[in-house]
Amino acid sequence: MPQLHLDPDRTFPPDPVTRQLARTVYAATRDLPLVCMHGHVDAALLADDPPFGDPAALLITPDHYVTRLVHSAGVPLEALGVGAGAAASRAVWRTFCANWRLFRGTPSRYWLTHELVEVFGVDTVPSAQTADRLYDELSARLARPEFRPRALFERFGIEVLATTDSPLDDLGAHARLAADGWGERVIPTFRPDALVHLDRPSWTADVAALAKRADTPTDDYDGYLEALRARRRAFIAAGALATDHGHESADTTPLGDADARRIYAAALAGRVTAAEAAAFAGHMLYQMAAMSCEDGLVMQLHPGVLRDHHDEAHRRYGPDRGFDIPVAAEFTRSLRPLLQAFGRHPALRLILFTVDETVYSRELAPLAGVYPAVRLGAPWWFLDSPEGLRRFRSAVTETAGFYNTAGFVDDTRAFASIPARHDLARRIDAGHLADLVARHHLDLDEAVETAVDLAYTIPKQVYARPAA
Amino acid sequence: MPQLHLDPDRTFPPDPVTRQLARTVYAATRDLPLVCMHGHVDAALLADDPPFGDPAALLITPDHYVTRLVHSAGVPLEALGVGAGAAASRAVWRTFCANWRLFRGTPSRYWLTHELVEVFGVDTVPSAQTADRLYDELSARLARPEFRPRALFERFGIEVLATTDSPLDDLGAHARLAADGWGERVIPTFRPDALVHLDRPSWTADVAALAKRADTPTDDYDGYLEALRARRRAFIAAGALATDHGHESADTTPLGDADARRIYAAALAGRVTAAEAAAFAGHMLYQMAAMSCEDGLVMQLHPGVLRDHHDEAHRRYGPDRGFDIPVAAEFTRSLRPLLQAFGRHPALRLILFTVDETVYSRELAPLAGVYPAVRLGAPWWFLDSPEGLRRFRSAVTETAGFYNTAGFVDDTRAFASIPARHDLARRIDAGHLADLVARHHLDLDEAVETAVDLAYTIPKQVYARPAA
Amino acid sequence: MPQLHLDPDRTFPPDPVTRQLARTVYAATRDLPLVCMHGHVDAALLADDPPFGDPAALLITPDHYVTRLVHSAGVPLEALGVGAGAAASRAVWRTFCANWRLFRGTPSRYWLTHELVEVFGVDTVPSAQTADRLYDELSARLARPEFRPRALFERFGIEVLATTDSPLDDLGAHARLAADGWGERVIPTFRPDALVHLDRPSWTADVAALAKRADTPTDDYDGYLEALRARRRAFIAAGALATDHGHESADTTPLGDADARRIYAAALAGRVTAAEAAAFAGHMLYQMAAMSCEDGLVMQLHPGVLRDHHDEAHRRYGPDRGFDIPVAAEFTRSLRPLLQAFGRHPALRLILFTVDETVYSRELAPLAGVYPAVRLGAPWWFLDSPEGLRRFRSAVTETAGFYNTAGFVDDTRAFASIPARHDLARRIDAGHLADLVARHHLDLDEAVETAVDLAYTIPKQVYARPAA
Repeated sequence: MPQLHLDPDRTFPPDPVTRQLARTVYAATRDLPLVCMHGHVDAALLADDPPFGDPAALLITPDHYVTRLVHSAGVPLEALGVGAGAAASRAVWRTFCANWRLFRGTPSRYWLTHELVEVFGVDTVPSAQTADRLYDELSARLARPEFRPRALFERFGIEVLATTDSPLDDLGAHARLAADGWGERVIPTFRPDALVHLDRPSWTADVAALAKRADTPTDDYDGYLEALRARRRAFIAAGALATDHGHESADTTPLGDADARRIYAAALAGRVTAAEAAAFAGHMLYQMAAMSCEDGLVMQLHPGVLRDHHDEAHRRYGPDRGFDIPVAAEFTRSLRPLLQAFGRHPALRLILFTVDETVYSRELAPLAGVYPAVRLGAPWWFLDSPEGLRRFRSAVTETAGFYNTAGFVDDTRAFASIPARHDLARRIDAGHLADLVARHHLDLDEAVETAVDLAYTIPKQVYARPAA
Repeated sequence: MPQLHLDPDRTFPPDPVTRQLARTVYAATRDLPLVCMHGHVDAALLADDPPFGDPAALLITPDHYVTRLVHSAGVPLEALGVGAGAAASRAVWRTFCANWRLFRGTPSRYWLTHELVEVFGVDTVPSAQTADRLYDELSARLARPEFRPRALFERFGIEVLATTDSPLDDLGAHARLAADGWGERVIPTFRPDALVHLDRPSWTADVAALAKRADTPTDDYDGYLEALRARRRAFIAAGALATDHGHESADTTPLGDADARRIYAAALAGRVTAAEAAAFAGHMLYQMAAMSCEDGLVMQLHPGVLRDHHDEAHRRYGPDRGFDIPVAAEFTRSLRPLLQAFGRHPALRLILFTVDETVYSRELAPLAGVYPAVRLGAPWWFLDSPEGLRRFRSAVTETAGFYNTAGFVDDTRAFASIPARHDLARRIDAGHLADLVARHHLDLDEAVETAVDLAYTIPKQVYARPAA
Repeated sequence: MPQLHLDPDRTFPPDPVTRQLARTVYAATRDLPLVCMHGHVDAALLADDPPFGDPAALLITPDHYVTRLVHSAGVPLEALGVGAGAAASRAVWRTFCANWRLFRGTPSRYWLTHELVEVFGVDTVPSAQTADRLYDELSARLARPEFRPRALFERFGIEVLATTDSPLDDLGAHARLAADGWGERVIPTFRPDALVHLDRPSWTADVAALAKRADTPTDDYDGYLEALRARRRAFIAAGALATDHGHESADTTPLGDADARRIYAAALAGRVTAAEAAAFAGHMLYQMAAMSCEDGLVMQLHPGVLRDHHDEAHRRYGPDRGFDIPVAAEFTRSLRPLLQAFGRHPALRLILFTVDETVYSRELAPLAGVYPAVRLGAPWWFLDSPEGLRRFRSAVTETAGFYNTAGFVDDTRAFASIPARHDLARRIDAGHLADLVARHHLDLDEAVETAVDLAYTIPKQVYARPAA
């Protein structure tokens, strides 16, 4: 019977000479601490350190990479534990195992195999036949103290983990972490999306909650900006190093103050148009860059995704179920207002992410290759995969170099997949650098140094708190 | 003197370990029957089984992949047998042979070499010097009964071949095939493009012909829909499993009934605008999806080509002469109306094709990776080539997996090239899967199983008639 | 201590069999003369043959590939010798050497290494420690007569070098070259951008200067066209073989004569709108193609770059400092008017360049693969790099073949980098062709012949003066 296994040479180029070089490069990064500067782990998980639930609740139901692919084969999302009337945990696990073959060639297969073998120490290949056995094996492990979140955090070698948080969050979980001496290991990230998109259904309530949380009235635009500033200060006090912004477009055109005030007032009155809301969102990216120049928070931008493509699925299953689909992205013209104003400002770090690979060589690398403020984020979402990571290095390095990138981010809700994701990125970079050595573009000692920089030095520097 | 030859390892990765793995994977698919679910072979060719004409009439003049490339070097199309005053067959053949070097690095070179060596058993490299000898060798073979269409069909191992047919077609050739017991081997495909583009010059005549063919009046919109439904039923009765749709845009926004009726009436009166015609075409894609949910025909969509880029060439030489040029495609927003309504409908299969590779990872793979109805068609037209096939697997597999693709389609008018095209796809897939094995992403037995699924199992399942 | 070195196998594929094939192919092109049909070397450099300045003035300050990348790391441009108050030469050199690691993985690293080792014969790796020693070594060499421009021109094996020149240029440097017998070795190229963009600040002065230079009044549109024709004739008399056009869009829609006259008059009166100026620029591309059909000048088109993205940097440092950023390009619809009129004209050669790789397989290769007039230019600007060159061949060859490309152009201001750039292109082509041989798509003798054609035969033919 076949067994799950992790070959020590996995992902490396097949050519023997290049593979040997890749091994050498990888050996220098394999055991470095994990620097996790962008992700979606819930801070309460580490603040409260509860045992994880059952295998399906940990590995299947909350992971939209997994549920979407099984659903695409015609399996109802309910059978994967999602939505009202969802199947019970063991049944969900069986459905997943019976569909294991769908994951061939995907990074989910790679990550899950790593988790099963390396994190949980099982070697059973998932299948309809083995589902129950695997479920029981995993359940037994999850009941043990060494599989609690903090124990895994230590075992994974995580040096720092950034969560992603609403300005409305009271940061209570981070306060509890700080009380336990974990305040510098788990830090918040300021993500104000809900507050800057004036046409979201919850906006009026959110902006009222902002006033309360910030203890600053938000009934006009100036108060709103001040409340946001106040929450940024609170996040910084709680250890935050960065903000994050998910917008459909990368537009950063500022409005005049009068226009901004007028549109804000119209939104409060429930009379904002879609065009005004879009213009205001672009304006707020510009404002956020201005605030970053003041307070030093690194600015992360994730544009170009049409969220909740299927309305009925959104209503029944909620957001983040696999129905977010990319659209073409544009950065050159969209970012120009922001970069004209702040692109050479010494205090700004702007990290750009994309799910549209066409901008890698055309727009992102040329922008990062000249503007001091701009860094390129790691391949995002669908692109955080062996081929995706390779194409990124191939497309951007020749124009932007290695040192205008910002280091790997795992960007995940799936806590147990964090080491697999970082390990994959380190392996792909090792393979890429090995290929440069094999083609005599780099010396081996330079390749090793660059690999260490990419895995550790660069993310630590890019997200460092600026000197006061 | 150099001879044409087909190396048994052709297209495989050069690395010896990977190449050996590719050989093993390919061995499992090499002799599988050919499942040809989309193409442009004329049904009459197999119904009437006439001998093919001369070598130029078979291999050169009708193949726009060949004529366009020689024309691009400055050779008049007439010298390739196209248009009024065209050269005679032997002269055409000489022109082609003298320009053989233009095909270096192209799939036409690959397919033609396969045809010459494997189908016709000649090993003479085309050149000005060898043209006459080759012409005579090929002519002698074409005169023999074993080179008639049905004999080649058997020799090629074709299990089923779908033609592409207008709803106006009487399906007489298919009836003759059925009478000979070939009804399940050669099946029609319903392609209503001419009837849904209201501003084509022939539309008024075509819609009148539709009324006659369907025995259903088409003088209003409701009758028109009913006539189309009637023809779909007739196609299904003749064995059809699918429809096919070539639109410049992938827009699928439905019109309200009143608007649809109004625009249809305006078209009948000769007063339709270009914008109305475009809106109606998008509306009809939505309607066709609705009909597919009712009658189970698989829906194939081929958008994003600007047809007949050069008007004068179109007037002189007709369509399909190489002057169709791709434009940027958009699927995420364009397909949203259709997918909101039918994307999770259990009876719909929607197969998406593109000649714009930028949508592979950005839009197509994410859509196929979540919507049960969506499958990805094989690389189309210019992309049906060694590198094109490789880039497709590289770009889509990590997000959509292998099992959201729909199998290879040869999409060809060139009957004698069918085995070459399928063989090439099987070889490229073998190389891709071998690389995954060499990098330890897949076990070899999984790679072999996946290869068989891609070559045979998947297309049979995707295009299967739904259970009644 | 590590030394700079140029491995004889650099850039070649690592697989030993393919590498051996690449060596064989490359051996056939390595020593061919350099045909430099597009670049930005100043003709006066070769007319006057002055010694080059110091190492920083030769290799750093004028090379925006180099300065932009160091600037992107936060180093002020002034420290690289750019702008008012710039650092002195030795300090610039030290800054560059201290940042050598930023260039890892970039073509600048490749070119500079080639220049240092092959052109200047030094083997010291640049670093903070070695900067002064290197500076002195290079300064000593630059003082020697064999490092003057003409001596290097001979040593580099340049057969012909095209400069890029304004129609306002008096071509005096070219006249001096001709007087020295260098008239066919260094030829001008007609680049009228400043004169066809009506909204540039200098346009009114430029068009007045044109009248004077052409001895033809330009106070109406017809005179303006006649003056341009006159300058084209003067350029042809001075040896020019081509024109060059840098436009933000590839639009080629012609205006009616009345509109063209009206807009031209408005521009003279200082009342032209941005939309009118854009329309006129597109119109002038159409007119330039018409003139090329008359006078046989090859037409080169370089669209899709947003120049001077950062206004303040432009004001302080001038153009060509790394702040030109690509935008998405469109060719299929944009070129249609021009190609409808002239795409099959026997006297037109239109060479298309892009910095947007998405159009390679989607638009450029299909256009070049059918229109006799169209050729594909070498990968441009950011794409003139090992991976960029590989992706170009991979993306276009299967649709357009090798013989619809136009040969390598170095497109450089950096005179000393010319042999490095051509050598790199020949190596990448050798590797690409070797891979085709290893995969049994080509025979080795065909690969060798194709490599020679790409490096020498094709550019000589494409830019040949048409028979009278």
